[in-house]
Amino acid sequence: MGKENKKKNRVVPEPALRRMPCYLAQLKVAKKEGQKYISSPKIANIMDIDPTQVTKDLSYTKIAGKTRVGYEVEPLIEELEDFLGFKSLDEAFLFGVGSLGTALIRDFGLKQFGLNISAGFDINPDVIGQKYDGVEIYHVDKFKELINPDIKIGILTVPVEVAQETAELMIDNGIKAIWNFTPVILRVPDNIVVQNTSLYAHLAVMFNRLHSKESKS
Amino acid sequence: MGKENKKKNRVVPEPALRRMPCYLAQLKVAKKEGQKYISSPKIANIMDIDPTQVTKDLSYTKIAGKTRVGYEVEPLIEELEDFLGFKSLDEAFLFGVGSLGTALIRDFGLKQFGLNISAGFDINPDVIGQKYDGVEIYHVDKFKELINPDIKIGILTVPVEVAQETAELMIDNGIKAIWNFTPVILRVPDNIVVQNTSLYAHLAVMFNRLHSKESKS
Repeated sequence: MGKENKKKNRVVPEPALRRMPCYLAQLKVAKKEGQKYISSPKIANIMDIDPTQVTKDLSYTKIAGKTRVGYEVEPLIEELEDFLGFKSLDEAFLFGVGSLGTALIRDFGLKQFGLNISAGFDINPDVIGQKYDGVEIYHVDKFKELINPDIKIGILTVPVEVAQETAELMIDNGIKAIWNFTPVILRVPDNIVVQNTSLYAHLAVMFNRLHSKESKS
Repeated sequence: MGKENKKKNRVVPEPALRRMPCYLAQLKVAKKEGQKYISSPKIANIMDIDPTQVTKDLSYTKIAGKTRVGYEVEPLIEELEDFLGFKSLDEAFLFGVGSLGTALIRDFGLKQFGLNISAGFDINPDVIGQKYDGVEIYHVDKFKELINPDIKIGILTVPVEVAQETAELMIDNGIKAIWNFTPVILRVPDNIVVQNTSLYAHLAVMFNRLHSKESKS
């Protein structure tokens, strides 16, 4: 196994991982502005965290900063994109081709971040047989036929009532990681990765914060 | 001010708020299954949390559980949807009509959760003048003309290089809450609400967990 793979396969603490796309974003801004180097205090300052935190987070990649000048911008962008898994393509199946599912397939630009949706599944005859941006939608019964060892990721955008059973169907047929967009707390075996992204929970938090501020002012 | 508004305007702790859409999801499942009541231990068990936590979270709404039978399913669904702000419509402007921005406008179904995008802004001549599902896309210079006191929410889906300046433009012209889909940490005044939803950070965490598990097995 190569050096790069070893790095990628290390478990990185979630807070560090979540900060890395922020570093990447900043580095891209620095690149655009023509900066060749960026220092950890500068990155830290923009993000309002401690410079030692930046150094520690970035030590998970194979790029080290240089005394006085800091990190070389372009190689660090390359390394971070690779490190975060955005440069290699993982294949995924999507379950639930409603409004959110269609959006993820059609417009989202997930491919540039390393996720390729290769098929969609639903039970609605209106969407079965359709193709969105080249991605065909099948009846969910076809899933067992179409799954193969390259597909390890399942995206869950079904209605809440069928979220748990759909997750179980995925897992029983070889899915190892579920990107769960439903607000349901999935019960899964320990060896299965679940990433929860409940947009409506975020929306609820935003509404509450906005309306409570409004009532004060 | 009515009773309902008072409730809505109270600041609810974020963890409680984030759990509420899960409760809502469960209640909808219970309703579908024909259950008239659901107990807090049952909700707690499915979500793997303590029943007292459920009771405490739900005490922020105006519905109380009844001894022995628990919560009446239908009224609690109504109340939670209202409490979470999903029943009244907030207007929003969206900035950055790329792949993600288009998806949010076109397919996402945000309206059923109380968010209506009434206009999109970009600088790309290919999208300016377009209409997606009835939502017109304008040049960003038109924003100052079109903003009005009803629009308090701005959705930020611009490229990272212009995220901070776009946020400032929004705030300078009356936006009070920013739903930030970029990985950039925005610097904003204290009275501005920022809700960060970095999908690519979630993706990065999922990739890391999946690939580190794979390398172990």
